[in-house]
Amino acid sequence: MTKLTTQASLTLPFWVKPFLEQWKTPLNSSQERLRLAIALARENVEQKTGGPFASVIVESASSALVSVGVNVVVPGHTSLAHGEIVALFLAQQAWGTHDLAEAGRPALTLATNAQPCVQCYGAILWSGVKHVVQGARGSDVEALTGFDEGPLPQDWEGEWLRRGITLERDILRDEACQVLSRYRSSGAPIYNPGRS
Amino acid sequence: MTKLTTQASLTLPFWVKPFLEQWKTPLNSSQERLRLAIALARENVEQKTGGPFASVIVESASSALVSVGVNVVVPGHTSLAHGEIVALFLAQQAWGTHDLAEAGRPALTLATNAQPCVQCYGAILWSGVKHVVQGARGSDVEALTGFDEGPLPQDWEGEWLRRGITLERDILRDEACQVLSRYRSSGAPIYNPGRS
Repeated sequence: MTKLTTQASLTLPFWVKPFLEQWKTPLNSSQERLRLAIALARENVEQKTGGPFASVIVESASSALVSVGVNVVVPGHTSLAHGEIVALFLAQQAWGTHDLAEAGRPALTLATNAQPCVQCYGAILWSGVKHVVQGARGSDVEALTGFDEGPLPQDWEGEWLRRGITLERDILRDEACQVLSRYRSSGAPIYNPGRS
Repeated sequence: MTKLTTQASLTLPFWVKPFLEQWKTPLNSSQERLRLAIALARENVEQKTGGPFASVIVESASSALVSVGVNVVVPGHTSLAHGEIVALFLAQQAWGTHDLAEAGRPALTLATNAQPCVQCYGAILWSGVKHVVQGARGSDVEALTGFDEGPLPQDWEGEWLRRGITLERDILRDEACQVLSRYRSSGAPIYNPGRS
């Protein structure tokens, strides 16, 4: 019992901060927000620091960047570390709250290069994020990469909407799909459990 | 951009390690595994260190304890930190792998005092855990505490089973429900987003 692990952590890859310092495109539109998410996913594949997935969280009105997340499942030693989870975890700890929608805070948008899997669907539900912009569809991810995305609830979009979360789909879908295809052709791992 | 947060972490409450050192009951049966999860959830309410939820992960055959998790959503500053997520995160980082089912590893059981919400449903799907034991039902959680558990996929149990994850339900359900009722009567927070 004395060997019990009591702390766990996630860290962004070394290249993310300098990459963002070079990024001069504004984040005023859904397209621009998604363009950054796709670029981060592409760079994560190039750098071989994780899967082909990334998210950015911005203040919906001011477009200020709050956090970014890239998939670090394999190097981060946890299947939790999808792009959306990393972005939400960093945003909440940066703000010092479990509730990104708490009174007095600006409304937030999460842009993800691909439709959230069932885990991240639920994580967004509890996060306080108010708007989601997605590129590739879940069916694109499964067809182009071989990852299992899991079952979503029936009427998943309606279930978000009833809890105050709106969705834009198919934004820059072709560009988003190109990164997924590139990951597969690179021979990088499909890390669903039991395959390693 | 220079203020971007690049690391986030979760830590078990201070009382967990001494609590486990006092726990002499073996973990050889589903009931005994769940009894520990319920006791951890109860203590988390008593200590006021989070919501009324906890999980334990054990080696299914040897019953060796691998990790425990208690809900630390509010003190941990992240809506991700449900009991199941904390237990999975600690187990994976302790073992140094994203895949608890990787070749050569013993099969694992996760016992949770209450049915996983949709986020944790998905997290278990990707974790490599092979068997889940649950106490209270999702409907018990919603009726007794007021927490929203979110929509699960249709045939969620079948979707787990098709991916090699088996489930035992309603184990020590009455004891599990007592902790949920106690949380509500303590006046502790319901921390779904937008309520704080």
